[in-house]
Amino acid sequence: MIGSIGAAAAAICIIICTAALQVEAGGAEVKFKYEIKEFQVPLDHFSFLSNATFNIRYLYNDSFVDKKNAHTPIFFYTGNEGDIELFAQNTGFMWELAEKQRALLIFAEHRYYGKSLPFGASTFNASLPDHLAYFTVEQTLEDYAMLITFLRNDLPLPVVAFGGSYGGMLAAWFRMKYPHLVAGALAASAPILQFPGITDCDIFYRIVTSVFQNAYNSNCTTNIGRSWKTFETLGGTEAGKKQISDAFHLCNPIKNDADLKKFLDYIEEVYGNLAMVNYPYNSSFLAPLPAYPVRQVCFYLKDLHQNDADLLHAMASALAVYTNYTNSAKCLDISVNSNADESGWNVQTCNQMVMPFCSNGTDTMFRPSNWNFKEFSDKCYKDYRLTPKPYDIILRYGGRNIETATNIIFSNGLLDPWSGGGVLQAPNNKVDIIILPEGAHHLDLRHSDPADPPSVRDARNKEASIIARWIQEFAY
Amino acid sequence: MIGSIGAAAAAICIIICTAALQVEAGGAEVKFKYEIKEFQVPLDHFSFLSNATFNIRYLYNDSFVDKKNAHTPIFFYTGNEGDIELFAQNTGFMWELAEKQRALLIFAEHRYYGKSLPFGASTFNASLPDHLAYFTVEQTLEDYAMLITFLRNDLPLPVVAFGGSYGGMLAAWFRMKYPHLVAGALAASAPILQFPGITDCDIFYRIVTSVFQNAYNSNCTTNIGRSWKTFETLGGTEAGKKQISDAFHLCNPIKNDADLKKFLDYIEEVYGNLAMVNYPYNSSFLAPLPAYPVRQVCFYLKDLHQNDADLLHAMASALAVYTNYTNSAKCLDISVNSNADESGWNVQTCNQMVMPFCSNGTDTMFRPSNWNFKEFSDKCYKDYRLTPKPYDIILRYGGRNIETATNIIFSNGLLDPWSGGGVLQAPNNKVDIIILPEGAHHLDLRHSDPADPPSVRDARNKEASIIARWIQEFAY
Repeated sequence: MIGSIGAAAAAICIIICTAALQVEAGGAEVKFKYEIKEFQVPLDHFSFLSNATFNIRYLYNDSFVDKKNAHTPIFFYTGNEGDIELFAQNTGFMWELAEKQRALLIFAEHRYYGKSLPFGASTFNASLPDHLAYFTVEQTLEDYAMLITFLRNDLPLPVVAFGGSYGGMLAAWFRMKYPHLVAGALAASAPILQFPGITDCDIFYRIVTSVFQNAYNSNCTTNIGRSWKTFETLGGTEAGKKQISDAFHLCNPIKNDADLKKFLDYIEEVYGNLAMVNYPYNSSFLAPLPAYPVRQVCFYLKDLHQNDADLLHAMASALAVYTNYTNSAKCLDISVNSNADESGWNVQTCNQMVMPFCSNGTDTMFRPSNWNFKEFSDKCYKDYRLTPKPYDIILRYGGRNIETATNIIFSNGLLDPWSGGGVLQAPNNKVDIIILPEGAHHLDLRHSDPADPPSVRDARNKEASIIARWIQEFAY
Repeated sequence: MIGSIGAAAAAICIIICTAALQVEAGGAEVKFKYEIKEFQVPLDHFSFLSNATFNIRYLYNDSFVDKKNAHTPIFFYTGNEGDIELFAQNTGFMWELAEKQRALLIFAEHRYYGKSLPFGASTFNASLPDHLAYFTVEQTLEDYAMLITFLRNDLPLPVVAFGGSYGGMLAAWFRMKYPHLVAGALAASAPILQFPGITDCDIFYRIVTSVFQNAYNSNCTTNIGRSWKTFETLGGTEAGKKQISDAFHLCNPIKNDADLKKFLDYIEEVYGNLAMVNYPYNSSFLAPLPAYPVRQVCFYLKDLHQNDADLLHAMASALAVYTNYTNSAKCLDISVNSNADESGWNVQTCNQMVMPFCSNGTDTMFRPSNWNFKEFSDKCYKDYRLTPKPYDIILRYGGRNIETATNIIFSNGLLDPWSGGGVLQAPNNKVDIIILPEGAHHLDLRHSDPADPPSVRDARNKEASIIARWIQEFAY
């Protein structure tokens, strides 16, 4: 997930926001094979207002299936905010485990993402707000419930749900609400507690800060903390605006305060992204990046800079680790908004995914910012004619009261800023908590790599054995 | 519940259909006291199409509450298809237990019933089918979830859901889907399995037949079984139609085949009703009735009648036990459709509550009838512009796969025809099954009465002790 906070109103994007989507692997491209299929679902599962339907996509691979097994497991990825092919390519663990368990692999695309658009090209047309009305967690889980029912075809097939980040939240909730359809769920880096009133709003930024603090040396966060003042000072003059624009090679130079704010929001978002994808090997999930990119960024900020110009140039070098690692960009385009996925997630933050973010400006390297729901809500109405329901998710899924949940693995990497909203303590002995001290955002869901730290290997082994048990318990 | 089947298309009404609603007790009227309050709920909890709201009613009694108790239990009746006051008056067990547990008593009215009408007087206007669009189980459970959240006001108050019949189904599903809001549920006579493909469609009629067979002597069901032929023969002539109309004192004499069919459907429904409310003392839940009314009915049918006229008159006397026990009716009005509740339930059978009913005509005393979904569905569309979704409930609540359910008591009386769709075997040791061999429809939920058979007393004791445990486990 990515934090795009700005001063007050937070529009937090999970997994993919600013960056172009790219297939990634340990340096090389991974190409998993699948058939692309479609499945018809009702537009609205919960009223009898209309019988309208549309198709969601899903990816299908039965190459591992043992046709003689009457209890073939189905590994079902509960697709999240993006084109489902991205997640199929970035969830190598499912492929590896499917081979061992001889499972059918399904990756379901979330409604309103990728090509699963209920109103085609006009789905996100802001002048037609009814088009966005059915873009909810509950409608999505129902899509998946119907798809699983179809795939099982009345056969006793154990289904295991997999998901990372928002997809992990969906996997966990799916098991909670449809336990008759899924034997268990692996919810990797799933911040189901990142909602109003149940988690401190500054936790995300505190964790990001801690990751940067420990990456190289502590000058990193000191420099970043000071930089806001530098940007503010320079941004106050025409010459200073130009100085910033030149230093960062901005495609569109900063012309006014709004541009400056946008630039600073962008940087803040990048820090969050970097912490999330601070993987131990080259990757290109959010952007092409070196191994442990935060360390690389902090390498450029290892010396304490006293004057604005020095700091500015160090910052520019540091940021380029994220924005131009491949050296292919001619300039930095901070307005990249190229895929429908960001549009999608922004809508979700304006209906149910109301996740408060804030910073007091002293415990973190970030600017001070308050969580102002009113301001946020007003913007949602302005943008989409949506009034957010900040307590919807807690009302339905229980917030911290998940004592009756069973057969869910919550895995969290402690280097992942989203772990602050994750489930780190088991509510009972039928829920497993797996902590990856060296893990970034759902690292465990990715393919095995020689550079994987021991905690990730251990986590995958444990996950594999728990999932095997669920399948066995289901079948016999 | 009541079986109104006709030849093929079943419109099964739970609890209250044909009869006027009356306060009942062991001979005398019971008057439980409560405040009537209102609570605002969204019309549609599951889309962002509109922000429309309306008010549901609930009944409130805090007279038993110990104000010093930080864990005051809330006893929450998940209202079903009728005016909530009827259920408050007919659920004496909750009042008795609330006194012991010093609980807050809440009876919530189901949307679209009583005075909880989202569109006021035009709610059921068939020319405005969008008015009926939000009349679903899920919307109703959300109403209750919001009301409980409001009532608890962030305090650690254990909530126990209570419900009988369809209300029991709601109580059970509520615990399954919102375990963070309710510590447990007593689901009395809740046929959550009475859905397509998971329960034989003839089970209801088989149980009714068995109740009648064992009530006095076996001539009872033989006479009833033969009567259909008698009605058919007589109904074939003008004189015969008059003979039937006279014998039964019909307010509106039978004039044609449609009238005859309506009359026979009505009788069939009455048999189901009688089995349901075959209580051990005078009652007036569905109609004013003597103790063990089926025995009384069968008393009038104890002699085997060979000729049509004799049989007709015996049948008329038998039916009068139900239709005119108080001797106050001047004639029999089979078109009584006076309350909005029947309208409500008929709509629910046409959206989600699709319960198949049938009879092979040999194993039961009923006419042969098939379950014809197409015919049923066509009628739903004609009447309400609704296309039933027969598998909605199983998709969401799991059908027979309820292994993960906890803290639910399913109680069933074996004399209750709805027990055929009830949960009679525990899926695990956290679900309790209580069988009342001598029990009719949710007899255990009613007030204590000296005439209660031992199994009902035992059931209530067991229920009380399980509920006390849930409350204690919640609090400590």
